[in-house]
Amino acid sequence: MNSANYQCSKDRMIDKIETMSKFGDAGHGGVTRYTLSPEDGQAREDFRRRMEAIGAVIEIDDVANMYATLPGSDADAKRIVMASHTDSVRNGGNYDGILGVMSAMEVLETVAENKIPHKHPLTAMIWTNEEGSLYPPAMMVSGIICWDFLPEDIKGKFEYDNMMKSKSVLDSSVTFGDALENSIYKGDKKYRLNRENYKYMFEIHNEQGPILEDAGNNVGVVDCVIGMFNYRLRFFGQAVHAGTFPMNKRKDALLGAAQVINYLHSEIDKLGHPELVYTTGEILCHPNVHTVVPDDVEFSIDCRHESADLRDKVLEIVKSCADKEWGGCKCVVEKQWNRDTVYWDKKLVGYVKEAAEESGISHQVLHSGAGHDAQFAAYLLPTTMIFVQSKDGLSHCEPEFSTPEHCTEGATIMLNAILKADAE
Amino acid sequence: MNSANYQCSKDRMIDKIETMSKFGDAGHGGVTRYTLSPEDGQAREDFRRRMEAIGAVIEIDDVANMYATLPGSDADAKRIVMASHTDSVRNGGNYDGILGVMSAMEVLETVAENKIPHKHPLTAMIWTNEEGSLYPPAMMVSGIICWDFLPEDIKGKFEYDNMMKSKSVLDSSVTFGDALENSIYKGDKKYRLNRENYKYMFEIHNEQGPILEDAGNNVGVVDCVIGMFNYRLRFFGQAVHAGTFPMNKRKDALLGAAQVINYLHSEIDKLGHPELVYTTGEILCHPNVHTVVPDDVEFSIDCRHESADLRDKVLEIVKSCADKEWGGCKCVVEKQWNRDTVYWDKKLVGYVKEAAEESGISHQVLHSGAGHDAQFAAYLLPTTMIFVQSKDGLSHCEPEFSTPEHCTEGATIMLNAILKADAE
Repeated sequence: MNSANYQCSKDRMIDKIETMSKFGDAGHGGVTRYTLSPEDGQAREDFRRRMEAIGAVIEIDDVANMYATLPGSDADAKRIVMASHTDSVRNGGNYDGILGVMSAMEVLETVAENKIPHKHPLTAMIWTNEEGSLYPPAMMVSGIICWDFLPEDIKGKFEYDNMMKSKSVLDSSVTFGDALENSIYKGDKKYRLNRENYKYMFEIHNEQGPILEDAGNNVGVVDCVIGMFNYRLRFFGQAVHAGTFPMNKRKDALLGAAQVINYLHSEIDKLGHPELVYTTGEILCHPNVHTVVPDDVEFSIDCRHESADLRDKVLEIVKSCADKEWGGCKCVVEKQWNRDTVYWDKKLVGYVKEAAEESGISHQVLHSGAGHDAQFAAYLLPTTMIFVQSKDGLSHCEPEFSTPEHCTEGATIMLNAILKADAE
Repeated sequence: MNSANYQCSKDRMIDKIETMSKFGDAGHGGVTRYTLSPEDGQAREDFRRRMEAIGAVIEIDDVANMYATLPGSDADAKRIVMASHTDSVRNGGNYDGILGVMSAMEVLETVAENKIPHKHPLTAMIWTNEEGSLYPPAMMVSGIICWDFLPEDIKGKFEYDNMMKSKSVLDSSVTFGDALENSIYKGDKKYRLNRENYKYMFEIHNEQGPILEDAGNNVGVVDCVIGMFNYRLRFFGQAVHAGTFPMNKRKDALLGAAQVINYLHSEIDKLGHPELVYTTGEILCHPNVHTVVPDDVEFSIDCRHESADLRDKVLEIVKSCADKEWGGCKCVVEKQWNRDTVYWDKKLVGYVKEAAEESGISHQVLHSGAGHDAQFAAYLLPTTMIFVQSKDGLSHCEPEFSTPEHCTEGATIMLNAILKADAE
């Protein structure tokens, strides 16, 4: 409680928000800023300009991650890094990802302006291609960087050579590797985030949910990213003509899928856990013609909760769907992936909590339901996250919003938490 | 019962089936033969070759319909025409459409070979673009030809200038009008099917359903094309993140749609009409991403039955879905189209029935659940149809099959029915 409590600048934060919101302006209040696009380049150059203006040194690694570092007083100390991403989904908002980059810059600018003493070098970092909107998958580059330390079943998804071959969803003749080679952001592998030069990782993100707003808290002290599973349920029927085939002989794969979507919602709800979330978000229907009974339909189920036991109970319900026929169709349940709850470093969570308490900013502890680069970084370095309240819980859409006050408060808490880590 | 009973030739029918099945061979027993494609050209040239070989005169109208006419003994008599189409759906079968063309040729070949006396000129006709697989909509060209006589609400869909602008589903830079201009089948408007020169229309088609097979009947005497409606139900929810948004605040448009698909199936089944068919065949989901709760989902419902009263009862159930919320979402019910039952000409149906009885071929009266060019032709000329048994009721797929015996029996019945009409 004895440390000075520094404040970040709301005016400077507003200036950054307004500037970044222009890069990829999608016309309805938000942005489309695909990784390594010209718009992403504008955001990266603004990062470079602001960071060089305060004397930070820019480094770029071989997969376009950018690092801006202010030296500390101890020449031998490892860096403390704050990271997030500049890329967005299509028609995304002005906060997802970029808020973490702006907050990292704001912390360094506050340190520089106030000449705040610190031993460790402090780094603001841009992760490349977190969204994976143009070149799937999401969290591609943190997957590459942290690859050696990832659990085996996650590792398989992020193998470097395969990632380089990831095709643009807009033009399959262009790969992520091509985009990297053709950008000015392909730097040197020696600059990659690593355990030798980096000590701790922090990430600020907008909440993307309504929990903070509903509770009237401005900032969230995140303690973990909750575990999840993703499965697909597939139904095999028979494609017959809508006008000529009697109802009692039909095998209707869309009817089967609709029955199971309802069944899952009613059975899983009976478990009665308000914090459990599950989503049947994607459906594919073949041949998807109004005059033909569908013969092949599949949908996704994404389920998330901290407790592996509860997730297992849900999974039992999902798997039980394969035991019977639905709409005359066989149901096949296929695992896509599974990931355990990733807990943030307890000491760093403690620093964030103390900083929040000392600042007088309203806050609460909560879990992250969404995945973030920090969750792969957590296998490499002690890591933690801070959330900023989201208006109406909206994200991945242009109306996404967080107030400049709350954004600045998030940065203030990160700054003071980092000074605690620096003072160890 | 006094008329001679002529027989068509199974060997000649098999030769036609084998030949036509090569034009657009899709590799799994069926064909892909889009209208005005090179493969369609092969089928049309085989039609020209066979018909010229028996002395028929070929005419082609301005929308590529082909007519092959054998003169009759009465120079002033109008023509009796038998028509169907050579085009197929993608990966379609060897019978849908082309069976009607082959049967029309077989009738003319039998008449020529046996020098069967007849007063009226007899015409075999190819309709262009019945399927609308490459250039939508289906039944495009019969819609154009019969346009002046169609009911007002159908007319709107088939306006000539708009049809010419119909874009290829494979290459949007090419229109149906372009395909027509670039083909050798753009003939003269004066040859169009019309009331002045044509007296009656017959069409043979494979059943595309299992009714004949289940009843053990080889041929169907079709009495009508049943009426139908096509509606879409649309659900408006809120797109939120799968991991961060509590279940009790969600508005899930796919859950809403799944609930209504189930509701419709259970409520409509309660009406208890075994001949009623309805299909929820097409579903569109936005944004259709496994990590996002869907905010905009729509599906189609196609409902068919002879009785307008029963269709109205079903429509009441469909419309009632708009009165409440589903999965937290509003449901909007939108009409696509509606068409009444089209009854075939009673006298022609009678000729077909008599010819079937006299032939000793197993047969029954049934409705057509599918739409056919003949149903637009019925607004222009007295028209009727004959069905040939379909194996397993399959159609619009490569395994579609009808036996050569049944195909030949269908042609035999059409020949003898036409001779009755000719003898009036």
